[in-house]
Amino acid sequence: MIGHQFMGKVHSHAYRDLPFYFDPPAVPVQQAISGRNEAAVREAAEQFGWDSVETDWRRLVERDDIDLIDIVTPNHTHADMAIAAAEAGKHVISEKPLAVTAAQAKRMKDAVEENNVVHMVSHNYRYAPAVQYAAQLIREGRLGRIYHIRAQYLQDFIMDPAFPLVWRLKKEYTGSGALGDIGAHIIDLARFLVGEFHSVSGMLQTFIPERPLEDGSGTGEVTVDDAAGFLARFNNGAMGVFEATRFAAGSRNKNQFEINGEKGSIRWDLENMNNLEVYFEDDEPGMQGFRMIHCTEAEHPYMQAYWPAGHIIGYEHTFIHQMAELINGIHENKSPHANFNDGFENQVVLEAVQESAASGSWMTTEQIKAGL
Amino acid sequence: MIGHQFMGKVHSHAYRDLPFYFDPPAVPVQQAISGRNEAAVREAAEQFGWDSVETDWRRLVERDDIDLIDIVTPNHTHADMAIAAAEAGKHVISEKPLAVTAAQAKRMKDAVEENNVVHMVSHNYRYAPAVQYAAQLIREGRLGRIYHIRAQYLQDFIMDPAFPLVWRLKKEYTGSGALGDIGAHIIDLARFLVGEFHSVSGMLQTFIPERPLEDGSGTGEVTVDDAAGFLARFNNGAMGVFEATRFAAGSRNKNQFEINGEKGSIRWDLENMNNLEVYFEDDEPGMQGFRMIHCTEAEHPYMQAYWPAGHIIGYEHTFIHQMAELINGIHENKSPHANFNDGFENQVVLEAVQESAASGSWMTTEQIKAGL
Amino acid sequence: MIGHQFMGKVHSHAYRDLPFYFDPPAVPVQQAISGRNEAAVREAAEQFGWDSVETDWRRLVERDDIDLIDIVTPNHTHADMAIAAAEAGKHVISEKPLAVTAAQAKRMKDAVEENNVVHMVSHNYRYAPAVQYAAQLIREGRLGRIYHIRAQYLQDFIMDPAFPLVWRLKKEYTGSGALGDIGAHIIDLARFLVGEFHSVSGMLQTFIPERPLEDGSGTGEVTVDDAAGFLARFNNGAMGVFEATRFAAGSRNKNQFEINGEKGSIRWDLENMNNLEVYFEDDEPGMQGFRMIHCTEAEHPYMQAYWPAGHIIGYEHTFIHQMAELINGIHENKSPHANFNDGFENQVVLEAVQESAASGSWMTTEQIKAGL
Amino acid sequence: MIGHQFMGKVHSHAYRDLPFYFDPPAVPVQQAISGRNEAAVREAAEQFGWDSVETDWRRLVERDDIDLIDIVTPNHTHADMAIAAAEAGKHVISEKPLAVTAAQAKRMKDAVEENNVVHMVSHNYRYAPAVQYAAQLIREGRLGRIYHIRAQYLQDFIMDPAFPLVWRLKKEYTGSGALGDIGAHIIDLARFLVGEFHSVSGMLQTFIPERPLEDGSGTGEVTVDDAAGFLARFNNGAMGVFEATRFAAGSRNKNQFEINGEKGSIRWDLENMNNLEVYFEDDEPGMQGFRMIHCTEAEHPYMQAYWPAGHIIGYEHTFIHQMAELINGIHENKSPHANFNDGFENQVVLEAVQESAASGSWMTTEQIKAGL
Repeated sequence: MIGHQFMGKVHSHAYRDLPFYFDPPAVPVQQAISGRNEAAVREAAEQFGWDSVETDWRRLVERDDIDLIDIVTPNHTHADMAIAAAEAGKHVISEKPLAVTAAQAKRMKDAVEENNVVHMVSHNYRYAPAVQYAAQLIREGRLGRIYHIRAQYLQDFIMDPAFPLVWRLKKEYTGSGALGDIGAHIIDLARFLVGEFHSVSGMLQTFIPERPLEDGSGTGEVTVDDAAGFLARFNNGAMGVFEATRFAAGSRNKNQFEINGEKGSIRWDLENMNNLEVYFEDDEPGMQGFRMIHCTEAEHPYMQAYWPAGHIIGYEHTFIHQMAELINGIHENKSPHANFNDGFENQVVLEAVQESAASGSWMTTEQIKAGL
Repeated sequence: MIGHQFMGKVHSHAYRDLPFYFDPPAVPVQQAISGRNEAAVREAAEQFGWDSVETDWRRLVERDDIDLIDIVTPNHTHADMAIAAAEAGKHVISEKPLAVTAAQAKRMKDAVEENNVVHMVSHNYRYAPAVQYAAQLIREGRLGRIYHIRAQYLQDFIMDPAFPLVWRLKKEYTGSGALGDIGAHIIDLARFLVGEFHSVSGMLQTFIPERPLEDGSGTGEVTVDDAAGFLARFNNGAMGVFEATRFAAGSRNKNQFEINGEKGSIRWDLENMNNLEVYFEDDEPGMQGFRMIHCTEAEHPYMQAYWPAGHIIGYEHTFIHQMAELINGIHENKSPHANFNDGFENQVVLEAVQESAASGSWMTTEQIKAGL
Repeated sequence: MIGHQFMGKVHSHAYRDLPFYFDPPAVPVQQAISGRNEAAVREAAEQFGWDSVETDWRRLVERDDIDLIDIVTPNHTHADMAIAAAEAGKHVISEKPLAVTAAQAKRMKDAVEENNVVHMVSHNYRYAPAVQYAAQLIREGRLGRIYHIRAQYLQDFIMDPAFPLVWRLKKEYTGSGALGDIGAHIIDLARFLVGEFHSVSGMLQTFIPERPLEDGSGTGEVTVDDAAGFLARFNNGAMGVFEATRFAAGSRNKNQFEINGEKGSIRWDLENMNNLEVYFEDDEPGMQGFRMIHCTEAEHPYMQAYWPAGHIIGYEHTFIHQMAELINGIHENKSPHANFNDGFENQVVLEAVQESAASGSWMTTEQIKAGL
Repeated sequence: MIGHQFMGKVHSHAYRDLPFYFDPPAVPVQQAISGRNEAAVREAAEQFGWDSVETDWRRLVERDDIDLIDIVTPNHTHADMAIAAAEAGKHVISEKPLAVTAAQAKRMKDAVEENNVVHMVSHNYRYAPAVQYAAQLIREGRLGRIYHIRAQYLQDFIMDPAFPLVWRLKKEYTGSGALGDIGAHIIDLARFLVGEFHSVSGMLQTFIPERPLEDGSGTGEVTVDDAAGFLARFNNGAMGVFEATRFAAGSRNKNQFEINGEKGSIRWDLENMNNLEVYFEDDEPGMQGFRMIHCTEAEHPYMQAYWPAGHIIGYEHTFIHQMAELINGIHENKSPHANFNDGFENQVVLEAVQESAASGSWMTTEQIKAGL
C-alpha cells in the first residue's frame, strides 16, 4: 500500500476483515506499506497491520513478495505509481479519481491493459448492498427505460473560511475540487446504474477564493471548485442533473440519487445507506408508494455474510465488498468494475464538465476523447 | 372569474373561505363567472357559488359591478384578458405562467402599470406558511449569504404513453411543458427566496413525442418538453440547480427545494407542506442536525387564523392566503407579490432556459430582456 | 350549535364548506348558535356564519326551525343537552368524549335510541382519508388476522407548570385528563380498525399536581391525569398498547398508530395525516418494505372531491367528511359511526382504564357494563 | 468462548477488530473456542480466528492460558458456565438475558462478586454511539426531569406458522420468549437511560401455540410468549410503556425508544442506529422541532476511532465498543455496565412482568427480590 491516511486506514481494514466474512480464493497478506515520513508510516503499519514499511514507493514496486499495489495517495501521484506498478507486473488498485486529467487516466488505462494486470479504481459506493441491489433491479428491467437520474453529493466540511488551504484545494494536486473528489462518485454511480454519458453542461464555483496557508504564513488562492453543478444527456436518452458541493450546511456526507424509469423509481442516500426506496408503477392503484427497503436481508447482495435481517452494516463494509471483488478478480485474472476503464470514462466526464464550465457550452465525451 | 376548471375551483373556494378565517378589509363577492360552454359554466357557478354567468369573457370586463378579474384559463389566453381588464380599470389576478412568451408578459406588465390597477400572478406556493417562514428566516439573515438552491418539481401524471394530447402538451397554448407549468413555480420560489437570476443553462426533453389525439382520430406531435433541467447563477452569486418533469414515477406532486447558506440550510417538500427542515450552523457541536419544524404554530405566518399547534392545513389554504394578500393589496392599492412584475421576471427566466436549451449555451436574463 | 370555541369554529366551517366539495342530499343551514356570553356568541355568529344567537341552549332545543343540535361545550354538559335534544326530536352530534362517565353515556345512548333521532359523536379522525383507507384494507382482509395495535396520542401543551388550572384539568368538568381528551380518540380508532376491547390494565399519572388558578388568586389541585398508559386485550385476540399524554415535549399533536396483522402492517401519524405506511407480507422477497402512500388519489376515500393527486388536505377536512356522513345519515335516518353507541363503548373503555388504574388489576369492559 | 453461532461470530469479530480502531491497554488473544460438535467448532475456530478448540466447555474454565470466558450459548446454560468461570477466577462476559430466572441471575451475580472477577452481560445496544450520546445528554440534565419512556422492540421472524419449534420457543431453554430475548434489551436501555424500575403490569401472548418440531416428527407446544407488553413505573416517577414482539410484520429488527423530559425529548431507532432525534424545549419559538443528528461526528462517543463525519458504522461496532469497555474494565479491575448486577436487575424486571401477567396485577421489583 502506498499512502497511509484516511483511505489507507479503510483499505487496510478491508483486507484484514475480508476473510472473516467472506471466503476469498486467496487471503490477502499485508506485506508492506510505504510513506515518506518514516515515523508516521511505522505507526500506521503497526496500527493497520502491515508487516513491513518502505519510505520510497518505488521499493514496493520492485519487491518480489508483492503482487498487488494499492494507491491511496493524493490524486496527482496516482499515474506514475500505477504505471510503474503495471510495468512491474503488479495488479493495482487506485483511489479515485483515477487521475488529474483524462490524458493521464488514458495512459494509466493503457499501461494496465498492455501489461495484462488486474486493475480497479476505488469507487466503493458501487458496493453498498442497496446500490448493488438497485443495479440488479435496473438490469432486470424492473424500472424499464430510464428517464432521469438526479444525484447530489453534498458535504460541508470546508464552509468555515478559516479552513486552511490543504492539498485538496489546489488544482495541481487534485485536478478539480468538489467535482473530482465527490462528483466523481456520483458520475461513477450514474455510469454504473444508468449508462454512458453523451454530453454535459457544467458550472463550477469557488465561494471562498482565498484561504489561510497551512503553515500560518498568510493566505493563498483556492484553485479548485468549491461546488459543481452539471446537466447531462446519456447515450440511452436519459437526462441527468448533478451537483457536488462542499458548501451544503448540515450535510456531512450526503451522497444521494433518484432514478426514474418508465416502470418505477429508486432513491438512495448514503447517510442511511442500508435503505433503498423503490416505487413500482404496477403496484395496485391506491397502494402505490415508495417502499422503504432495509437492504439487510439474505436477498440483498453481500448480506448473507453478516447478520440476520435488520442489522445494519456501515461505510467500511463497502470497501470489504470491493476488496472481495478485487481478490476474486485477481484469482480469475479479470478486472472487476470499477476498473481503470471506468476510471478513465469517469475522468472524461469530469473533464467535459470542466471544459463546458470554461466555455459556457455543452461538451460531448467524444469531443474530450478526440482531444486526447 | 374567467374559466372554471381545477384552478377555477380552488380560486373560488379561496374567495368563499377567506372571510371565515381572516378579517379582510373587504369581503369578496362572487359576482360572475364566464366560460364558453354555458351548461358547464352554469354548473360551475352553482357549485362554486358565483351569482351570475357569462359566456363571453369580454362581458365580465365590461360589467360595472365587477372590480377584480380572475383569469384561470389556458396560458395563451392570459394576455388578451389581462390587458383588457387592466384597460377597463379592473384589478386582475392571473394563473401562472403569466404568458406564453416574455414579450407577451411584458405587454401585460406594462398594461397593469399604465392603468394603475392591482395585479397578481397566482404563485400560491409562496403562501404556504412554511415557505413564508423560510423567507422570513432568510430575510432576517439566519442563513447568511446564500450559496445554493436546488429545487425539483416532480410529477408523473403523463407517463403513460396513452395519455392524450391535451392542450397542456401543445406549445401554442402553453409556451412550454413541464418547464412553464411546474418549473415556473420553482423559478418563482427561487426568486422569492434567493433573488434574481443572472443566467441559465437549460436542457429540455420530450420522452414521448407522439400521443393519441383527444378525439381518438389518430396521434399528434407533443410540441412541448416532458422534462426540463437547468443550471443557474443568481445576481448575488448563489448557484441554482433545477429540474421539472412529468416523468418521475412515484412523485405525484413533489415540489421540493433545499437552500444552503453560510449559517444554515432549509428544506421543504410540498407533499408534506406543513413541515420545514432547518439547520443552523451555530447549534452546539454534537447537537447539530436538521430540525423538523411543524409549521402549525402561532409563530408561523397565517397559522393563528386556524387551530392549535399540530393541526395541519392543506393545499387549498395557500390560495386563501394569497387571496387575503390580494384583497389587502386592493384595499391599499398596492400589488402584492407575486405580481405581474414577478410574472414577467419568471417568464424571462423560462425563456432564457428555452433559448439556452436551443442554443446549447448559457443565456443571461439581460439578453432576453434586451431582445424584447 | 351549542358552544363557540375551538370546536365550534371547526364544526361551523365544516357545515359551511361541505356543499362546496360534496353534493349533500340536504344543505345545512346555520340557523342559530348559543352561548352564555352574549357579546362573545354574537361575535362567533358573525365570524362563523350563524344566522341567530341564543344565550340559553334550551332555547335552541325548543326552536322549531332547528333539526340538528351540535354540542361543542365542555364534557360535563353533553349529557343534559343531548338528552334534551333527543327528547325534543332533534338529531344530535356531540363532541367527544361523549360524557364524563359510562353511566351518563348510557343514558345519552338510551335517549337517542328511544327518540329515534340520528346521533353522532365527533371522532373526526375516523374521517381522515388515510384512516378510512386503512379501515378498508383491514375490512378486505389485506392484513389478515390482527395481532397488534400500538397507538399513542402525544401532546405537550401543558408542560409548563405555569399553565393555569383550566376546566380541562378538573375532573368534574371532564371525567379524566389526557385519557378522555385524546386517549378517547385512539380508543375510538382502535375500535374502528381492530374491534371491541375485552379488557385493559391502566396507569394514570399527574406530573404537576398543583397549578395557578386562572383568576390569579392562588393555586389549585389538578384532579385529572396528565398522562395515561394502558394495555388491552381485544375480543378478537389482538393485543393493544396505548398511551395518551400532554407531557411529550416536541409532540404538538402526534396521534399515531401501527397495526400488525398476519399479512401486513399499517402505520399512520396525524401530523402528516395524508400519508399512510403499508407493508405487505406477500411482496416479493428483497422488495419488502413499508410503502409510503400519499392518500390523495382518486382511489382514496373522499379525495375525488378535491384536487389532483399529490395535493394534501388538512385537519379541518376530517370534519367536512364527518358532517357529510352526518347529513347523509339524517337523510337516510341512520346514525353513522362514530355514533352514541360508539361514544358509549369508548366511555366504557375509558372507565375500565380508570378503574384498573385505581385497583391495580385488569378490568374487563363487561365488568364496567355490569356495574351500570 | 463457549458457543459459536450468531453471537459467537459477532463477539469473535469484535475481539479481532478492536485493536484496529482503538488502542486497548491489552490486546485480546483468541485462545480457544468450545462447542459440543467438534467439526462445527473447528470450522468456527478457523473462520472466526480462534487458536484452539475444546468440545467440553469445562476444559476452557480449567485452562491456565485463558483469562476471560465469553458465554454465547442458550440462556439456560449461562448460570453453570458463568459460576464455574468465576470460581476458577476467570473474568466473564455472558450473552443476555443473563439467566432464565431471577434466582439464577442472583447466584451468578453473587459468584462473580465473591470471586472478584470482572463481569459483563452483553447488552450491546448501550454502546451504539447515539445511545451513549443520549445517555450523556440525560446525565447532563439536558432533558431535565424524565416523564416518559416508550420503547418497542419489534421483529417478525417467526410469523410464519411453519417456522419450527426451535429452542428459543421453549421456556426451559430461555425463560421467556420475545420478552427475555428482545424485551430484555429495552429494559436494559430504560434502566441505563431513565433509572430503576419500581413496578410493572404485564401482558404476554402466544399467537401460534403449536409449531412443527425441528426434526419433522410432528408438532409441539410453544411454551413462551410471542409478544409482551408492559406498563412501568420508575423509582424517579417516570412512566414507561414497553412492547416486545416477534409478530410485527415489516419490522425486521426495530428497537426504538422515545424519552420525554421536562426540557426536551429523544428518539432512537436501531434500524437507522447512527441517527438520534433530539428536541429542546428552549429552542427559539417557531424554530422548535426534532433535530435529526447523524451521530458520526467527533463529538459523539467512540466515533473518533473511525471516519470523518457522515460515514456510518453498523451493528457489529456496538460489540467492538462493548469489548473495548470490557478490556478496559479488566485492566482496571472494574466491571463496566452492563454487568452482572445489571443483568440481575434486568432479570428481576423480566420476572416481574411474567408474574404480573400471570396474576393480572401490578408487581414491584422489590416483591420479586423479596421472593428470592
